[in-house]
Amino acid sequence: MNSLKITLSLVALVAFCSSGNTQEDKDIIRTIYTQSLTNGHSYQWLDHLSNDIGGRLSGSENAQKAVEYTKSELEKLDLDSVWLQPVMVPKWVRGDKEEAYFETAKGKTEVNVCALGGSVATAEEGLVAQVVEVHNFEDLKALGEEAIKGKIVFYNRPMQADLIQTFEAYGGCVDQRYAGAMEAAKYGAVGVVVRSMNLRQDDFPHTGSMSYGDLPVEQRIPSSAISTNDAEALSQALKANDNLNFYLKQSCQQMDDVQSYNVIGQITGSEFPNEYIIVGGHLDSWDLGDGSHDDGAGVVQSMDVLRLMKESGLTPKRSLRVVLFMNEENGLRGATEYARLAEANNENHIFALESDAGGFTPRGFSFAANERNFNQVLGWKSLFKPYLIHYFELGGSGADVGPLKTDTNVLAGLRPDSQRYFDYHHASNDTFDAVNKRELELGAATMTSLVYLFDKYGVNPIDTPEILKD
Amino acid sequence: MNSLKITLSLVALVAFCSSGNTQEDKDIIRTIYTQSLTNGHSYQWLDHLSNDIGGRLSGSENAQKAVEYTKSELEKLDLDSVWLQPVMVPKWVRGDKEEAYFETAKGKTEVNVCALGGSVATAEEGLVAQVVEVHNFEDLKALGEEAIKGKIVFYNRPMQADLIQTFEAYGGCVDQRYAGAMEAAKYGAVGVVVRSMNLRQDDFPHTGSMSYGDLPVEQRIPSSAISTNDAEALSQALKANDNLNFYLKQSCQQMDDVQSYNVIGQITGSEFPNEYIIVGGHLDSWDLGDGSHDDGAGVVQSMDVLRLMKESGLTPKRSLRVVLFMNEENGLRGATEYARLAEANNENHIFALESDAGGFTPRGFSFAANERNFNQVLGWKSLFKPYLIHYFELGGSGADVGPLKTDTNVLAGLRPDSQRYFDYHHASNDTFDAVNKRELELGAATMTSLVYLFDKYGVNPIDTPEILKD
Repeated sequence: MNSLKITLSLVALVAFCSSGNTQEDKDIIRTIYTQSLTNGHSYQWLDHLSNDIGGRLSGSENAQKAVEYTKSELEKLDLDSVWLQPVMVPKWVRGDKEEAYFETAKGKTEVNVCALGGSVATAEEGLVAQVVEVHNFEDLKALGEEAIKGKIVFYNRPMQADLIQTFEAYGGCVDQRYAGAMEAAKYGAVGVVVRSMNLRQDDFPHTGSMSYGDLPVEQRIPSSAISTNDAEALSQALKANDNLNFYLKQSCQQMDDVQSYNVIGQITGSEFPNEYIIVGGHLDSWDLGDGSHDDGAGVVQSMDVLRLMKESGLTPKRSLRVVLFMNEENGLRGATEYARLAEANNENHIFALESDAGGFTPRGFSFAANERNFNQVLGWKSLFKPYLIHYFELGGSGADVGPLKTDTNVLAGLRPDSQRYFDYHHASNDTFDAVNKRELELGAATMTSLVYLFDKYGVNPIDTPEILKD
Repeated sequence: MNSLKITLSLVALVAFCSSGNTQEDKDIIRTIYTQSLTNGHSYQWLDHLSNDIGGRLSGSENAQKAVEYTKSELEKLDLDSVWLQPVMVPKWVRGDKEEAYFETAKGKTEVNVCALGGSVATAEEGLVAQVVEVHNFEDLKALGEEAIKGKIVFYNRPMQADLIQTFEAYGGCVDQRYAGAMEAAKYGAVGVVVRSMNLRQDDFPHTGSMSYGDLPVEQRIPSSAISTNDAEALSQALKANDNLNFYLKQSCQQMDDVQSYNVIGQITGSEFPNEYIIVGGHLDSWDLGDGSHDDGAGVVQSMDVLRLMKESGLTPKRSLRVVLFMNEENGLRGATEYARLAEANNENHIFALESDAGGFTPRGFSFAANERNFNQVLGWKSLFKPYLIHYFELGGSGADVGPLKTDTNVLAGLRPDSQRYFDYHHASNDTFDAVNKRELELGAATMTSLVYLFDKYGVNPIDTPEILKD
């Protein structure tokens, strides 16, 4: 781009910004933040969800309690309607606490493991086998069936520490967890142990979803995560003795699907009731901790968006919904059902925002949008500067809102600071005490402010400068 | 400003940016971040400073151990010189753990308090008096001597939760702690209890410096901080019974000054040895926790700046110093002595950077600079975008580097995310476990990158566009 073009674009941008960036907008956003920081409800809701209910794996009793609790809390907010959207969800249960150790000349070394969600159990007496350490699926191929058959495959590729955005490091590793068992089974492996998706060295194993793909039931092998400290210890031990035995016992199992629900609350739009703006997180969580960051935070922030709109004296022109999705972690059934019904009912979803990256200090949003809509959003960015919100970038949004994408609407995901997220993600330390009240409340305010702007301006402004059109 | 001016300024800025924003700069900064995140030393140094040494109040044995430890670690870095700069520091000791309770019809309620740094003790048998609650010095004046004489003044103004930058909320409250005793003594108060400077509700009392000003010794009254939970409890109890008795016992005392040191390491500049760039934090801390965030983090990050420069293959053109200041918390003697000697020795300090706001995810820097130098710095801002560094604003720098300000040099303070800082500040929970390794390392890399740019470009570039000159 030459400098004249830069100049013209900048001039256009300055002109454009002024259209959706008024003193009224500044004042309302200030009110929203003040409300959230001095009178927010997100933290007390999270306290109940985390400490009184706890982990909420799809199909569990706790998941049902969370449905009932959030519905009853939404009913207190004087919305226009609150309802449950039925959806059948998978039910996987962990069973007894897993056991694992490896044996060297010095004796047994116990290690911290947990079954991956969706894994089969070991035999009741456990599984004992030698271990082959690999870093990726290419290593499997290079080793071949001869080296792998009858062994436990130990995937030990660490998250890449020099990536600034930790979700990128996660994306670079999670294939080991998700597809590790189905790939290893092809070479005759009898089990899989995967290094936890954690940038820290500690003793917490991190669970998460895995899949056997179309592998026949009889070929499915137990799959487990091991803590980062124990992954290092096992790797060291293997360097000294690659014939050591590893013992794994887990009793998890897949049950029949059960009835569950998305929880929805709505303020019906005063001017454009069939233009929908939704904000949500997922109500289910893994079972090891209490799911405070993943995704209790997103649930309570989303609930507070509607409350903060009302407390800030705002009457939405468009229909504003909070959607608490069920079964994000191991099936996405709630999101799929929500999108199916939205289409069947011809609901025009102009904007959908998800919070599912932890309750940490918000930095901004990632947007899935066409160029025109993204330019509109960029025009609002300076409104967020007083709140240290700086990250407005094109990219993904969220797993639950993803199915709602069209060519003309906008999806977004809240982007909190990500440095600590994988310290807790899917592990037993994802608990209420790891969430800071102010950080959580800042997230709720940031989401509400963006929802306010989309409600006020919509997604197809008449005054888009010609120069910014395609 | 009209739009033509905006356009011209933007054009100038674009032109200007390109001068200090090369591919080489991008590559080197990437190397610095990678080094810090994969091979940083800051976290292991902090582990020793926090867990093996601990709280390092000026004049204490631990402060001396910290001097010796950091000097010996700097000596391992193959710098051009490492030395101690002698300075006499005040020595205040806390004595026995403080005791406090208030009495109502229901009995005694114990409360969590700690003496403020510099306070006198109570009598050995403790102090018992009625309590008068105020929010500020105007309240004292309105109440007058009649209502205050013989009582304990309870300052209970909370930090303002709706301020986004928590240091601003701190600035709006800290007069109660620093000057509360000297102001209350004027009206005949016999003691002071101050609500802890903490945005959270919890049980930790937060210490910090206080002063009696020029109050004669015999008029000095004991001054203590109370936890936020207990401040609320006391306030509630006073609403029911404003005659309740409060008991306070503390045995702290001020000793004679003792010999201590700033710790300094230097790489001498290859081209401009009398142009100094310094980076530092303060080696002393309060005594309740282990001073991990305040300011162990700043100390180890500053040490790592010099190491990361070398590890990244950089040979400074200007003299680069790490300065670990002694006695920031209760006297600033180290900083004062450093500045005195810098002036006496005619050392031209072109840039001084302090990290003293915790080891949290870095967001950017606050700069004390003239317009020309600040514009130069703004030209570098986009180099930091990949690292999510966005905050480049004029403002304060740091207490220790402050005395070095001239009309033409630049001072800066690292600005990490501030939301959690006052959860730990000056309290017993400011400990190693509250610091995240990656967040700490990102701070060290961010500091090193800015130091690299100042070393490369200096502060007075020849190519400043005319349009940006005053």
